[in-house]
Amino acid sequence: MKIGLVGLGKMGMNLGLNMMDHGHQVTAYDVSPDAVERFRSAGGEGASSVEALVKSLETPRIVWLMVPQGKIVDNLLDQLEPLLQRDDIVIEAGNSHYKDSLRRAQRLSASGLHYFDVGTSGGMEGARHGACYMIGGDKETFQRIEPLFKDTAVPNGYLYTGPSGSGHYSKMVHNGIEYGMMAAIGEGFEILEKSQFDYDYEALAKVWSNGSVIRGWLMELTQSAFSKDPKLSEIRGVMHSSGEGKWTVEEALDLQAAAPIIALSLMMRYRSTEDDTFTGKVVAALRNEFGGHAVDKA
Amino acid sequence: MKIGLVGLGKMGMNLGLNMMDHGHQVTAYDVSPDAVERFRSAGGEGASSVEALVKSLETPRIVWLMVPQGKIVDNLLDQLEPLLQRDDIVIEAGNSHYKDSLRRAQRLSASGLHYFDVGTSGGMEGARHGACYMIGGDKETFQRIEPLFKDTAVPNGYLYTGPSGSGHYSKMVHNGIEYGMMAAIGEGFEILEKSQFDYDYEALAKVWSNGSVIRGWLMELTQSAFSKDPKLSEIRGVMHSSGEGKWTVEEALDLQAAAPIIALSLMMRYRSTEDDTFTGKVVAALRNEFGGHAVDKA
Amino acid sequence: MKIGLVGLGKMGMNLGLNMMDHGHQVTAYDVSPDAVERFRSAGGEGASSVEALVKSLETPRIVWLMVPQGKIVDNLLDQLEPLLQRDDIVIEAGNSHYKDSLRRAQRLSASGLHYFDVGTSGGMEGARHGACYMIGGDKETFQRIEPLFKDTAVPNGYLYTGPSGSGHYSKMVHNGIEYGMMAAIGEGFEILEKSQFDYDYEALAKVWSNGSVIRGWLMELTQSAFSKDPKLSEIRGVMHSSGEGKWTVEEALDLQAAAPIIALSLMMRYRSTEDDTFTGKVVAALRNEFGGHAVDKA
Amino acid sequence: MKIGLVGLGKMGMNLGLNMMDHGHQVTAYDVSPDAVERFRSAGGEGASSVEALVKSLETPRIVWLMVPQGKIVDNLLDQLEPLLQRDDIVIEAGNSHYKDSLRRAQRLSASGLHYFDVGTSGGMEGARHGACYMIGGDKETFQRIEPLFKDTAVPNGYLYTGPSGSGHYSKMVHNGIEYGMMAAIGEGFEILEKSQFDYDYEALAKVWSNGSVIRGWLMELTQSAFSKDPKLSEIRGVMHSSGEGKWTVEEALDLQAAAPIIALSLMMRYRSTEDDTFTGKVVAALRNEFGGHAVDKA
Repeated sequence: MKIGLVGLGKMGMNLGLNMMDHGHQVTAYDVSPDAVERFRSAGGEGASSVEALVKSLETPRIVWLMVPQGKIVDNLLDQLEPLLQRDDIVIEAGNSHYKDSLRRAQRLSASGLHYFDVGTSGGMEGARHGACYMIGGDKETFQRIEPLFKDTAVPNGYLYTGPSGSGHYSKMVHNGIEYGMMAAIGEGFEILEKSQFDYDYEALAKVWSNGSVIRGWLMELTQSAFSKDPKLSEIRGVMHSSGEGKWTVEEALDLQAAAPIIALSLMMRYRSTEDDTFTGKVVAALRNEFGGHAVDKA
Repeated sequence: MKIGLVGLGKMGMNLGLNMMDHGHQVTAYDVSPDAVERFRSAGGEGASSVEALVKSLETPRIVWLMVPQGKIVDNLLDQLEPLLQRDDIVIEAGNSHYKDSLRRAQRLSASGLHYFDVGTSGGMEGARHGACYMIGGDKETFQRIEPLFKDTAVPNGYLYTGPSGSGHYSKMVHNGIEYGMMAAIGEGFEILEKSQFDYDYEALAKVWSNGSVIRGWLMELTQSAFSKDPKLSEIRGVMHSSGEGKWTVEEALDLQAAAPIIALSLMMRYRSTEDDTFTGKVVAALRNEFGGHAVDKA
Repeated sequence: MKIGLVGLGKMGMNLGLNMMDHGHQVTAYDVSPDAVERFRSAGGEGASSVEALVKSLETPRIVWLMVPQGKIVDNLLDQLEPLLQRDDIVIEAGNSHYKDSLRRAQRLSASGLHYFDVGTSGGMEGARHGACYMIGGDKETFQRIEPLFKDTAVPNGYLYTGPSGSGHYSKMVHNGIEYGMMAAIGEGFEILEKSQFDYDYEALAKVWSNGSVIRGWLMELTQSAFSKDPKLSEIRGVMHSSGEGKWTVEEALDLQAAAPIIALSLMMRYRSTEDDTFTGKVVAALRNEFGGHAVDKA
Repeated sequence: MKIGLVGLGKMGMNLGLNMMDHGHQVTAYDVSPDAVERFRSAGGEGASSVEALVKSLETPRIVWLMVPQGKIVDNLLDQLEPLLQRDDIVIEAGNSHYKDSLRRAQRLSASGLHYFDVGTSGGMEGARHGACYMIGGDKETFQRIEPLFKDTAVPNGYLYTGPSGSGHYSKMVHNGIEYGMMAAIGEGFEILEKSQFDYDYEALAKVWSNGSVIRGWLMELTQSAFSKDPKLSEIRGVMHSSGEGKWTVEEALDLQAAAPIIALSLMMRYRSTEDDTFTGKVVAALRNEFGGHAVDKA
């Protein structure tokens, strides 16, 4: 198929190469001309503007957005909408909030455009060699672009999840689960690290990756991380977050769903970004007030 | 009444003075001769040894232990048991584990001694001017010592809670609740501190101490703490703990009781004692592995 | 002072009577003519419409809204704005979201009206005999209405908290703390109830209300509740919630503040409204899958 | 090798067959003669008593215990110790507490016996066709029995973890991680189930098993569970637990390690075993006390 790809960051570049590996023709645009040049060197076609990208495609066109979530997507849609025509397809495969995707799908459908919200999992490695897709949008139209997903995913690694919004919604929940799983793994090693035993963490993560109940990609990545830095002594335990975990907890609150594991895994990330807390100061001060317990001086 | 008091730390000294304020005769012993001397200066009688202390009392004797929990209590009982005689009373009013109290009560009853496990709340201030007691032990014998509690407690501030162990058990749970309450207060101010508003925390804690749903002694102490250090900038938010919170959570686990608030308030204390965590390192390393997300260098 | 009171529900009626006790003249309106009639019987003046209420006041007018948060407030402001004139004052003392209050204050200021967002604590009893107020709005104008708060609050029970929004914001956080405190108390009794001891809960809550570290109004209410139903056997442990707890957690998320105690106390409320959970089904199914562990049949 | 296997439950039977598949000679004993008979029918040798089992082996003997943790293990060791002789090996591959394993290893070493504490993961399927082992004990002796683990594990599925206790300790932590992961997965589906979308859970678990970040055996088992019961409507969400999760949390407490995810996943299991909670009753009663909020009648 012929695809116009917008966005050549870590994920977009890998996906573009992946598409080409499977015989698709990809014209790519990025705000960075360097990125476009790198894509050209790798055998792809480059476009110097969104307009040029659209012009290079045949109708009905397929435009694949792989850009950071937020305003950038809306700005691109502002540019794209007048350039595209009825029956063209826009695939947005970044980490957008599902409510944004619902809104955007509705907006574009007024112009007869088809919008697909696609949750993409599998990291950079997956983007390059076999991703995992959760795809929301119109079911009939989906069949036209199914080969694109089939070719660039691992076997059985794509799913039409339902109407608009359902793709990013399920990706959001996927990331919520991911937060919980990562926290569980982290806490396990925290306990091991404080224990009386002296484990070889790489070896332990490796054996847990082979035959155990908790085997899976995250455990393999744990092994990989320990193989490079046996005690992770080179990094600080600051756990940044980029949105989906928060959205999952907000969604749980809106649904009045108890999701303590996901909520706590997010809050412990927030905690990790601070050297000290006001909560702690208040509690320490209270202990001093009623019991005369010594406080640590700042 | 005539009481032998063992232990003249922060709590014991205050309680001894409190007893004397109400006309009781107190002979006190402490491992520190200085403390005994200070007690003498304050009008009490001092004993230079446990033996001397016991000798100074009339049968049936009342010995009140106000010492740190653990081995110290057992060692004192080792000393006291041969010195005391049938029908003497030992009151242990520290923060012992209820299982220790159960064991000790059983041990002493074999010698015909009466053992009372007493949870004492209200802090140093309460010890001096009106404490709160939860008292476990033999109900009939309790009546003999009830005046002692009645006199040194605030009005309605003492309760016979049931058989041996029930005093310290309820004090343990009291402290578990205290952990949760303090954490809730701390988190509230944490949110205020991060908010767009610029509150006067002392004033806010004061208004919350007057008429609000969350009014109570802890809020008054919060006010007091902020009155001394408006942003608590002089202290670090390190929340130490001394056992009862942990015991409460362990008890919850043994009872298969869900107590997430108390458990988390304890775990956040542990978290506060660390500059960095292994959990955090593992999660940060995993984010880097699958998504190429940057890590903070150690 | 002369006040127009809109809303004669549980809180509004009590506050109106409280104001009159202190010599203020109150004209009240409620959508229920019965409520207005009851207010008249109690010595107040009634108005049959918002328009009539506004007409009964002298400029600069003071209108006090005591209605459920949400659309109702906005609808009332729609009605009030054209009836009021420059320098009139609107006090909104319900449980509104602070962002709504910020928006409303801005809206009314365009017409030269003064808007105060007031968090009211202390329950029905407080409303009647001495409330606790957190008051946001213009500081100078506040002085004009300060007597109203001073008279109807307990001593030291009102605070000017800062600019618009700060009143409801601090009330929101107050309720977040309240959620955590209540959960901590609940968990304490949960542990006691499962323990080997047989406590008299009313007596225990009473002694904890007198001299203990955890004494306060919530503990007194705990005593009161147990005095009516010693084992709370007549009620189900379904913990409903009405918004502020959720807002506090959402705010914590927006501020990237770790507030696990408040978050969990909310989520356990959600959990309590369900007989069974999908989470539980998935975990039970997984245990069966890997370990052959028996599941409970639905 | 020639092995004496004690215990032919779900795990033991499968492991015995697994050993034989790889050419080991297994004599098995179980308290149930039926189980022994079934093992004989499957081609193994049966023993009618522990004594007979020991006699069937050649020195230095290898006895593999695959029985429920607790007293049963101690009772077996009581029987075995006098029957075994210096340099014989006892492998205990059940889910014992690591402190029991430490104690037992010490006990047997006094008789010159070698004790290995082995955590076995992978469920029944793993036991039959390729398990995952974490093995604690004497390193040199381990080499004598390594082939047994190598043959019955998946490739790379066994690890000598260190001295006595380290095998069961790491298995304990493995299970703690498992608790957290399962809870995270459960919560994800809880949110999906309450959402506005209508997902095919089997399909979603399948796509998440192929290429996603959260792929792994637990997700494959989730898919399997949904394939049998698409909405899990036939089971109740009661999450039983069998010890290791609790031990992990207790260990975290002893180490003063913050492990909120694992702790909460355990506590939510406890919560799931109850229809109602006393915590909930207290909170509901308090809401009624201060705010007049209606309670649900029992």
